[in-house]
Amino acid sequence: MGLKAGIVGVTGYVGEELVRILCRHPEIEEIRVASRDFVGEALDRVFPHLRGHVDREIWGMEKLPDLAAWADVVFLALPHGVSAPVAREVLKRGKRVIDLAADFRLPDVKLYEEWYRVPHGAPELLKDAVYGLPELFRSSISAAQLVANPGCYPTSALLALAPLLKHGLVDRSTVIVDSKSGVSGAGRSPSLGCHFPECNENIRAYGVGVHRHTPEISYYAGVLSGGQVDVFFTPHLIPVTRGILSTVYARMERPMDDASLRRIYEEFYAGEAFVQVAVAGEWPETKWVLGTNRCFLGVTSGAERQAVVVSAIDNLVKGAAGQAVQNMNLMFGLPEVTGLTGPGLYP
Amino acid sequence: MGLKAGIVGVTGYVGEELVRILCRHPEIEEIRVASRDFVGEALDRVFPHLRGHVDREIWGMEKLPDLAAWADVVFLALPHGVSAPVAREVLKRGKRVIDLAADFRLPDVKLYEEWYRVPHGAPELLKDAVYGLPELFRSSISAAQLVANPGCYPTSALLALAPLLKHGLVDRSTVIVDSKSGVSGAGRSPSLGCHFPECNENIRAYGVGVHRHTPEISYYAGVLSGGQVDVFFTPHLIPVTRGILSTVYARMERPMDDASLRRIYEEFYAGEAFVQVAVAGEWPETKWVLGTNRCFLGVTSGAERQAVVVSAIDNLVKGAAGQAVQNMNLMFGLPEVTGLTGPGLYP
Amino acid sequence: MGLKAGIVGVTGYVGEELVRILCRHPEIEEIRVASRDFVGEALDRVFPHLRGHVDREIWGMEKLPDLAAWADVVFLALPHGVSAPVAREVLKRGKRVIDLAADFRLPDVKLYEEWYRVPHGAPELLKDAVYGLPELFRSSISAAQLVANPGCYPTSALLALAPLLKHGLVDRSTVIVDSKSGVSGAGRSPSLGCHFPECNENIRAYGVGVHRHTPEISYYAGVLSGGQVDVFFTPHLIPVTRGILSTVYARMERPMDDASLRRIYEEFYAGEAFVQVAVAGEWPETKWVLGTNRCFLGVTSGAERQAVVVSAIDNLVKGAAGQAVQNMNLMFGLPEVTGLTGPGLYP
Amino acid sequence: MGLKAGIVGVTGYVGEELVRILCRHPEIEEIRVASRDFVGEALDRVFPHLRGHVDREIWGMEKLPDLAAWADVVFLALPHGVSAPVAREVLKRGKRVIDLAADFRLPDVKLYEEWYRVPHGAPELLKDAVYGLPELFRSSISAAQLVANPGCYPTSALLALAPLLKHGLVDRSTVIVDSKSGVSGAGRSPSLGCHFPECNENIRAYGVGVHRHTPEISYYAGVLSGGQVDVFFTPHLIPVTRGILSTVYARMERPMDDASLRRIYEEFYAGEAFVQVAVAGEWPETKWVLGTNRCFLGVTSGAERQAVVVSAIDNLVKGAAGQAVQNMNLMFGLPEVTGLTGPGLYP
Repeated sequence: MGLKAGIVGVTGYVGEELVRILCRHPEIEEIRVASRDFVGEALDRVFPHLRGHVDREIWGMEKLPDLAAWADVVFLALPHGVSAPVAREVLKRGKRVIDLAADFRLPDVKLYEEWYRVPHGAPELLKDAVYGLPELFRSSISAAQLVANPGCYPTSALLALAPLLKHGLVDRSTVIVDSKSGVSGAGRSPSLGCHFPECNENIRAYGVGVHRHTPEISYYAGVLSGGQVDVFFTPHLIPVTRGILSTVYARMERPMDDASLRRIYEEFYAGEAFVQVAVAGEWPETKWVLGTNRCFLGVTSGAERQAVVVSAIDNLVKGAAGQAVQNMNLMFGLPEVTGLTGPGLYP
Repeated sequence: MGLKAGIVGVTGYVGEELVRILCRHPEIEEIRVASRDFVGEALDRVFPHLRGHVDREIWGMEKLPDLAAWADVVFLALPHGVSAPVAREVLKRGKRVIDLAADFRLPDVKLYEEWYRVPHGAPELLKDAVYGLPELFRSSISAAQLVANPGCYPTSALLALAPLLKHGLVDRSTVIVDSKSGVSGAGRSPSLGCHFPECNENIRAYGVGVHRHTPEISYYAGVLSGGQVDVFFTPHLIPVTRGILSTVYARMERPMDDASLRRIYEEFYAGEAFVQVAVAGEWPETKWVLGTNRCFLGVTSGAERQAVVVSAIDNLVKGAAGQAVQNMNLMFGLPEVTGLTGPGLYP
Repeated sequence: MGLKAGIVGVTGYVGEELVRILCRHPEIEEIRVASRDFVGEALDRVFPHLRGHVDREIWGMEKLPDLAAWADVVFLALPHGVSAPVAREVLKRGKRVIDLAADFRLPDVKLYEEWYRVPHGAPELLKDAVYGLPELFRSSISAAQLVANPGCYPTSALLALAPLLKHGLVDRSTVIVDSKSGVSGAGRSPSLGCHFPECNENIRAYGVGVHRHTPEISYYAGVLSGGQVDVFFTPHLIPVTRGILSTVYARMERPMDDASLRRIYEEFYAGEAFVQVAVAGEWPETKWVLGTNRCFLGVTSGAERQAVVVSAIDNLVKGAAGQAVQNMNLMFGLPEVTGLTGPGLYP
Repeated sequence: MGLKAGIVGVTGYVGEELVRILCRHPEIEEIRVASRDFVGEALDRVFPHLRGHVDREIWGMEKLPDLAAWADVVFLALPHGVSAPVAREVLKRGKRVIDLAADFRLPDVKLYEEWYRVPHGAPELLKDAVYGLPELFRSSISAAQLVANPGCYPTSALLALAPLLKHGLVDRSTVIVDSKSGVSGAGRSPSLGCHFPECNENIRAYGVGVHRHTPEISYYAGVLSGGQVDVFFTPHLIPVTRGILSTVYARMERPMDDASLRRIYEEFYAGEAFVQVAVAGEWPETKWVLGTNRCFLGVTSGAERQAVVVSAIDNLVKGAAGQAVQNMNLMFGLPEVTGLTGPGLYP
């Protein structure tokens, strides 16, 4: 097809992962990259593993108009707050935007400002932004000019919850999402909390009940169920580089055995290329999805009344860059799996 | 005091940890060790890090009568099922036993046999066994001849739950324990699940709802609350060597703010040497308790109705060997902290 | 091209890695797999991450004749000693063999039996076996029926040493290879040495001076230099899953500055798709080659007389399965990089 | 004895480790702490694992005179360049100083300034500074007012090399030190190189031949051998928190078998509490010394001419804080092992 793709914010982990995926994507003709850091450097000096694969100079943000004019699609891998005005610039030139920040995920500007504590940079665009979780909201994505790529935790939580909520199987006031994430989810900027000696051989919870992905999970859980859902969300930091395992708990409205619950999941996700329901006796592991756009789900109904769903994703792929490319495929009428096939790295 | 301590099952991680703690214990005069493996070898050939510290031959199980005759107290770090008859042998000689297996934790032989799938090896002793979780059941321990040392997961879960249950603050039908454990909890015998390339860079759940520590948690939660408690327990395997972080969720009967809930915990554990309640804004990390007999607790009441308690322990110390020594101290009238003081290893 | 590939020993890490690479290889029409373990099981039950990618039953070794008859090429990912007779069976049917064990790496049966302590299973085939390190011995590979795929350590060491030896730059009596390897190099069978709690947070040397890859490195170093080379080889076990970093030391015959030495390396490997020489100021990291068939080299001449070369490979790819596919490409006249392109996983 | 100990630079890993060791030291009466960061905070808010163990406010550097006046001994855990003038202040008040920075390790101010690229802050003190590696230079330490605590790498390298050099067994022009270090050696300040996702699942060399510990190793190797020694030093970063494994290579002047070489090491270190020579067949692991002041050595003579010595230490203990306390014990006439006994943490 010969698409031209721009990546803004290329020097973070999500930006780099977009390069990794897009440089093998058969319909991408060329990639150009920009960033606020490392401006003017060659991409393969910042990321030597890309040497011989992608040979680009990193443009500064002042070249944004050129990038937008050139590109067919622009991916924004920027911090929240920074993203929105950049999106406006690109959309103005009639090019499509896939935003990997939080700026367009919540439809309500007040909710956004309450949780993110910054004024929204382009509130007028919110009404046109489409939430890019294809397995749950596929229809609206194809026509979108602006896709808000979901957060990593919400992706893992919503794919786990959707069948329960859509079928009205659970009490909407008792939903708990207990997530365990690798450290790459915190980005590439060094901090004490992500300093190797502090993370290694350590397990910790953080932002218990107050993490910014909470309203995103709750809001789309509500959309799926057709009513308000109370989600309590606890993220944990685990000493792995990649991977999110979410363990989701909800009270079932009526007793159900494991096999019946599993059947509901298998039917719900039948035909989905990127969602696998584990067979009886298996529980998903993040290693099963390493480097892939997959979500692996395991289910049990506990003592018949406690639905427990475990979901495993790679936070940088299905939780970010891979899902963004999946959205791009939909937006450009390509087969959804283009550039996203093949097994992951094991072990 | 000059106590003589025997350790049976010394070649596993719990047995070794008992040696590490007891060889610095000021009231221990001598340690002798036995095992089913490595019989006749020097302990410091199996564990070179003990060289120069503890110089013992590993006795075979046939020397059990000698060991029992010699010792004041015998620690059993054996697999469940193996432990019970050994305990009987030692008790017969009038010596005290601290059993670190599961054999004497559940008071009901049927419950034990249902979950552990082996006949109980000494059911007649169950009525005299005392559950050795000092902070919750201290009074009965001093007089005990046979202490059942709690499981690692139950220790972390029950310390987190006790104030809620004792004060009747939560709905007893919605208790969820989501635990994350290091790999040493699985013992020293190699297996595919604990093979480095399989564990490293991986997060997984296992035994969801069916782990053998489930009835132990439920039973003692019931004792604490004075009624039946439905606990759903999900353990996860995390690529660290030591540490358990348990995140406990329960529905509060009436709204309460964070500060009030924290105050309840601080009062409940006031004066406890080994339980620390984190201050506002802190969430416990397993690194804060590495190598120590401590439990660090963090609490929030969520949106006023969702009690969330995070507990961090070292699974081999407070979750096993350290708690066993704490029990020994109580049984012999020693200050409870003897041999268990000092900060842990950081980072 | 429509090649049919058989993989024997598919349930180990090297066998699985062959599947991962070959199932994306554009010239592979079909893969069939055999093993001594898990016979009759579906491959995706043993390796759930392959589900939806490769759907094969694992054949037992008794189906070897069928496999050989069907295949165009058979990869042997078997233990040393087991491999040789299987190779004979396949060659008998006129099919090409790429052996990833040690059986055909050393040209001298006595040397093999001295180091591997088993009788050689097919000594008559040694004269026709070709050592499959394409960058150094490419010419003979295309015509080979039987390729001995190099060991992981020798690959990393010989690529680092070749320019020095070919150009006669170093004293052949002082070559030291100090290698650091991830744990997957030890295979998928559980053992105490690879048990997570023993490997994690640990660094250790093993087989110092007596590791079985020593004669392989020495022999081919000798071939490259045209004379005997004394190599002292020390492997170390590092708590990573994948990756070998080898640090190679040799005494230079005459002073040389860094830039000159680097130029020699750049020229030596000019045009090689899989060897990258790091630019001045860079030192290779195993993370730069994760999941790829690349070798990254860094060089310095130290105080003008000490050549130090650091090489980084992924032990399962360039050190095993990837190099085997590179050899297959050569044997079948395909472009050498077919199925082996694209950047690796980072971070 | 009732010693008063001051620690300056307490908020780094070495400072904290000093607290951990000194707060259990039976002859330490009180500890006071200062730092350039976190001034005015409680020590147990910065390091929650110290809560209940050490309750101190962190003083700012302006309280240095008070600290010096109060203390019997002051430990400086400061960056190089910062340390020297602080040492002068303390010495002026007649108090003893143990400096854990590099400022007083090299006796020659020019050598220091060449490698550290800052002017020396107190060159007049160099002549009185004593290099605090007790096993090799014990006699001068007792009388010292100012001890320069060795670097972590030099400690591991010199203990490995000393018997070879003292006995004149090796060619002094071919000494290679290949070290593998955990990440805590880089300190507690976050940086990209120590960011978890960059370190984890990665092996890399750095500062090859140009690391600042090179002149320190070379100089004291020269002192031990009575002549110039050419040491080539390559450090590597390994994804563990603690531990250094150094593999040292030297060419033997005359053939020697393994047993003879081992005997030389055993005799050399006979009576040393903190140096263990591994028995035949054992190779030291960093896990054997975790949290201890020990150095474990393994030796082989290779093919009779290549001496290879592997040494394992905990970089924060024998490589820093533990050795500093060992020096303090000597300076105050205490038994050398005081406060440093007991086995380390395993696994």
